[in-house]
Amino acid sequence: VTERARDLGLRFGRLEPGRRNSIADVGEVVVGHRTVSGDADGCARTGVTVVLPHQGNLFREKVPAAVHVINGFGKPAGFAQVEELGTLETPIALTTTLAVGRAFDGLVSHALAECPEIGVSVGSVNPVVLECNDQRLNDARARHVVSEHVLEAIRAATDAVAEGGVGAGTGMICYGWKGGIGTSSRLVESSSGSHRLGVLVLSNFGRPSDFRWRRRTFEAVSGSRQRGSCAIVVATDAPLGPGELRRVAARTQYGVARTGTYGEDESGEYALAFSTARRAPDGDPSSSRSAASMETLFEACADATEEAIVNSLVAGRTTRGCGGAVAHAVPHRELETPA
Amino acid sequence: VTERARDLGLRFGRLEPGRRNSIADVGEVVVGHRTVSGDADGCARTGVTVVLPHQGNLFREKVPAAVHVINGFGKPAGFAQVEELGTLETPIALTTTLAVGRAFDGLVSHALAECPEIGVSVGSVNPVVLECNDQRLNDARARHVVSEHVLEAIRAATDAVAEGGVGAGTGMICYGWKGGIGTSSRLVESSSGSHRLGVLVLSNFGRPSDFRWRRRTFEAVSGSRQRGSCAIVVATDAPLGPGELRRVAARTQYGVARTGTYGEDESGEYALAFSTARRAPDGDPSSSRSAASMETLFEACADATEEAIVNSLVAGRTTRGCGGAVAHAVPHRELETPA
Amino acid sequence: VTERARDLGLRFGRLEPGRRNSIADVGEVVVGHRTVSGDADGCARTGVTVVLPHQGNLFREKVPAAVHVINGFGKPAGFAQVEELGTLETPIALTTTLAVGRAFDGLVSHALAECPEIGVSVGSVNPVVLECNDQRLNDARARHVVSEHVLEAIRAATDAVAEGGVGAGTGMICYGWKGGIGTSSRLVESSSGSHRLGVLVLSNFGRPSDFRWRRRTFEAVSGSRQRGSCAIVVATDAPLGPGELRRVAARTQYGVARTGTYGEDESGEYALAFSTARRAPDGDPSSSRSAASMETLFEACADATEEAIVNSLVAGRTTRGCGGAVAHAVPHRELETPA
Amino acid sequence: VTERARDLGLRFGRLEPGRRNSIADVGEVVVGHRTVSGDADGCARTGVTVVLPHQGNLFREKVPAAVHVINGFGKPAGFAQVEELGTLETPIALTTTLAVGRAFDGLVSHALAECPEIGVSVGSVNPVVLECNDQRLNDARARHVVSEHVLEAIRAATDAVAEGGVGAGTGMICYGWKGGIGTSSRLVESSSGSHRLGVLVLSNFGRPSDFRWRRRTFEAVSGSRQRGSCAIVVATDAPLGPGELRRVAARTQYGVARTGTYGEDESGEYALAFSTARRAPDGDPSSSRSAASMETLFEACADATEEAIVNSLVAGRTTRGCGGAVAHAVPHRELETPA
Repeated sequence: VTERARDLGLRFGRLEPGRRNSIADVGEVVVGHRTVSGDADGCARTGVTVVLPHQGNLFREKVPAAVHVINGFGKPAGFAQVEELGTLETPIALTTTLAVGRAFDGLVSHALAECPEIGVSVGSVNPVVLECNDQRLNDARARHVVSEHVLEAIRAATDAVAEGGVGAGTGMICYGWKGGIGTSSRLVESSSGSHRLGVLVLSNFGRPSDFRWRRRTFEAVSGSRQRGSCAIVVATDAPLGPGELRRVAARTQYGVARTGTYGEDESGEYALAFSTARRAPDGDPSSSRSAASMETLFEACADATEEAIVNSLVAGRTTRGCGGAVAHAVPHRELETPA
Repeated sequence: VTERARDLGLRFGRLEPGRRNSIADVGEVVVGHRTVSGDADGCARTGVTVVLPHQGNLFREKVPAAVHVINGFGKPAGFAQVEELGTLETPIALTTTLAVGRAFDGLVSHALAECPEIGVSVGSVNPVVLECNDQRLNDARARHVVSEHVLEAIRAATDAVAEGGVGAGTGMICYGWKGGIGTSSRLVESSSGSHRLGVLVLSNFGRPSDFRWRRRTFEAVSGSRQRGSCAIVVATDAPLGPGELRRVAARTQYGVARTGTYGEDESGEYALAFSTARRAPDGDPSSSRSAASMETLFEACADATEEAIVNSLVAGRTTRGCGGAVAHAVPHRELETPA
Repeated sequence: VTERARDLGLRFGRLEPGRRNSIADVGEVVVGHRTVSGDADGCARTGVTVVLPHQGNLFREKVPAAVHVINGFGKPAGFAQVEELGTLETPIALTTTLAVGRAFDGLVSHALAECPEIGVSVGSVNPVVLECNDQRLNDARARHVVSEHVLEAIRAATDAVAEGGVGAGTGMICYGWKGGIGTSSRLVESSSGSHRLGVLVLSNFGRPSDFRWRRRTFEAVSGSRQRGSCAIVVATDAPLGPGELRRVAARTQYGVARTGTYGEDESGEYALAFSTARRAPDGDPSSSRSAASMETLFEACADATEEAIVNSLVAGRTTRGCGGAVAHAVPHRELETPA
Repeated sequence: VTERARDLGLRFGRLEPGRRNSIADVGEVVVGHRTVSGDADGCARTGVTVVLPHQGNLFREKVPAAVHVINGFGKPAGFAQVEELGTLETPIALTTTLAVGRAFDGLVSHALAECPEIGVSVGSVNPVVLECNDQRLNDARARHVVSEHVLEAIRAATDAVAEGGVGAGTGMICYGWKGGIGTSSRLVESSSGSHRLGVLVLSNFGRPSDFRWRRRTFEAVSGSRQRGSCAIVVATDAPLGPGELRRVAARTQYGVARTGTYGEDESGEYALAFSTARRAPDGDPSSSRSAASMETLFEACADATEEAIVNSLVAGRTTRGCGGAVAHAVPHRELETPA
């Protein structure tokens, strides 16, 4: 059994996690990985991860969604339409930066297969892709990811979410340690009912000396520029509209920041949030009920993001990259809840 | 020789066009088309168009750039980083919606070939792709465009810009007539010097009855929803920074609107503007010189956009699409400058 | 009886206007003017106009709202919170630029008087103020508007909306002619029901030679910089959420652009849209019903904005300003529907 | 002598502070306070603080500027034009929420007095006001702040920046303790030269239990909603353009987040950044020099924001508010650098 941050005694705020402490605690959310790793034919330390908001036909049953750009030094796909319409109509793919086009193409293949009406009786489809750059471990120029990997990841989707160096997380490094996929969730009880909020991160950012969850942070700051990034997906079954989801997504930044980073220049950081409550009212603004619930959802999002990042590190295994670089697993015994 | 709107006596504002009355009047800007058209193996009425801000190494010599989203119902790639950093580092590719991923991949291929440092000693690259949906004439589901077409379009780039149903314009329809690629330019004389501004459009929007440049617009409005869009590229040799370029790009919307449309729900409309003056100061805000020049650049951008759209129609040839749809060339004799 | 644009035979699109052809056709919307004009104690050609989404307690019964910035060269108040929360909680005040602070203060006075809970058991209030610069006719430096004028305008609010040089419109100039307040509305029939959309503009922009609704536009372009602007309020009883209202508000720009302007550098142009349907769902995105309705609301917004601007000119009376400047009423017989 | 956070042995990152460890280390920046406090005629615990980027004529010598909205639940003035033009042309006023209109009016008075050309030969002026809601200690409904207080604060401006419950900070509460004005600075050495970055905060946010700089945080979370906010001003003498300043301003959020908050629903949080290097180039994007410098400026901004917030608490004195509420000074001996 893989240890997670809570198993080490680390604590993350006052709210309770969901049953799996993962994004799969929310509605029917499932996550699939396709790890692409090997040393033949160029060296691969990369992959694809997909998040499916539900297991029906997403194009026909879109979900309310919003994006929040923390640092736009990145290459996500599909954000303009999510911002305009407030809906998500494909699975969310996460992958290595140079593969964004192929992941887009894979999502198109998936949508065309599911929906014969696309490009005929209705218009086009808006694939959403998030990315981080895994070139420190992966031979990124070889472009090992192909569009078919997206379809394989979708087929592999499950509510048992693997963490660490799997799927898109295969080649990622966070605060100098092996990073990658991490997840966490929270129960949000309020007078308006009981809801769940889950976060999945692809962690690939941070200077070693900035990490606040490690007991001794004595490393000198490397003179080299950081080329990380962080992709974040937030799911909730609270019935939020796009405007409210954007506000929730903005709270991921608090979770990221609390781990210690100042937001590196080249670290593209993005969050996409969606609601699994299909028919999302945009909130009755005069309702104190709604406000109470929002307050706790914000707290849940910051806390779960922080925990998901630490989980991505706790799950890391020491990984030898292409060209000899090694990303070590963070020593669990050195982790400590900051004051 | 192909007729253009001015050859028909149509007039577009008070400013003089450049020598070619095209985006290629600006600096070293060149444009390449790869038309993908044929009836074998599924029916293709599609293609790729590329705009190159200069003919050097764009990744190493980036140009200041900005985007303006008129209607975000679309799938452009690369916008987040242009908004964050204010720079463009690849050619701009225009193509059919479902091919955005492949065009992204083609731009990656181009950048990797030009720059061995990408993914090794420096980070990733940010491909920029604009799109319109040509499914009314093209068998979009067959995905005839492949990434290699981007490289072919780049190799074909020239300062002689073909208009109408070429490259990405092959399958486009505008105001019910055959649309596609159009271009125009303006000379901008001011106390701060003489500059050029050029516009290239990919026109694919508008209800027939809304077109204001045709003498009699008696058509009934079709009950069917419109699924068009409009992609716009603006180039100038005025030394503008990203903030100023964004303001210029916003003026394309005036040119679009003057042709009659109200901005259809599903018509994704975007503009990307760049400056070919490499080291772009962001303007001395207290300078009246700069303000005078900005005023005329704004006027030039609106006028050139309007003319480029009409040029895209004037260059149209009647085109039989897949499944029997026909887009007719607009009758030149029915065109008339609005009051 | 004051003539309006339709009385002159001018035509504005295919949709029918509401009963009053004004923003007061929507729900309980009322408009109040406080004209501040006189030659004693400095020369005043200014005033305040207010739009009330309903006649209840707006702070307690907020309405969904959104803003769209066409050109941010202006000084509106209250936009950040409308963008964040998607709600409007005060009347909208329109006034002269330098009086924005006083109008804000007047709206605070109004809210405090209506709501003893503000600043005690609940938090603060977000006043919304739009502005144009009337300094060409008004002695703007004398600051004739005081906060009490806002309260007087609120008390004067009625569903009979006066146009032209009244309230905030007193000192405004549009395309070189006397401008100011104009309004128009449309009926929007769709399969989802019958709705109304109304627009009120404060017109103060445009070079004379750019006006497209006048038969002969032979004026030379003045060398002087334009310092106009345009404030626009959109109301609808369609049950839209903030995201949808933002998209509707964006269509005002099409109406503005069709009148001829290219968006002058210093012309601050803004739209604020609200829905009078209190509990606004943010739309079921997969519903074709909703899409059909949005399409027609977009068209209605562009058309009503264009008509409201022309109405503001048609209602203009020749006005002598401070320092001898004169703004002439546009000659009605020279107006003509553009091709 | 007032103790500051560093005097208590608290540490904030690796970069050195400037000579004063305040925003006044940057160029000619000065700060003025007008405290409005007293129990006669209603109870006042409020005031105005101004930041002057330089001591010349700001309207005639504008500085490059940008804003970053962390949480738009607030009522700042002047942001739209700063976003559009990238310039600041008045002092920045900070005050209590309901006084934003009066502070706007005071800045207009200042600009009119300094510039006889405003409203005559040139256009209007764009006052910038930030705010927090001090109603927990102040009788906000009494509106004790008047526009003249802005002029008094400007006249009082000095490079010796008082912290804590002065000026706009008089009635503010942060993490349940007496908050208000805090400031800090950093030296940024890079291959492109030596620069300074300074931050001034008006702190008024956070639940007591979330504060990460206090040794024991055992308080239960209050069930009541928080109504705080945080206004942040960033100054640098690095020659940045608006696009770069926006990126720097965005790093304030990392500093805020590290102190422990998750971004409360009603906590309006904003940053405005300006450069005192008058002629700000927007950066040569291909220059590694510029990138190295940006990286360190980002780190400096996050660190200085965190320190300024803690400084605002360290400077707090126990304050009895209107209606009997008391905000205690944080016990200095309980403060501790988080792991």
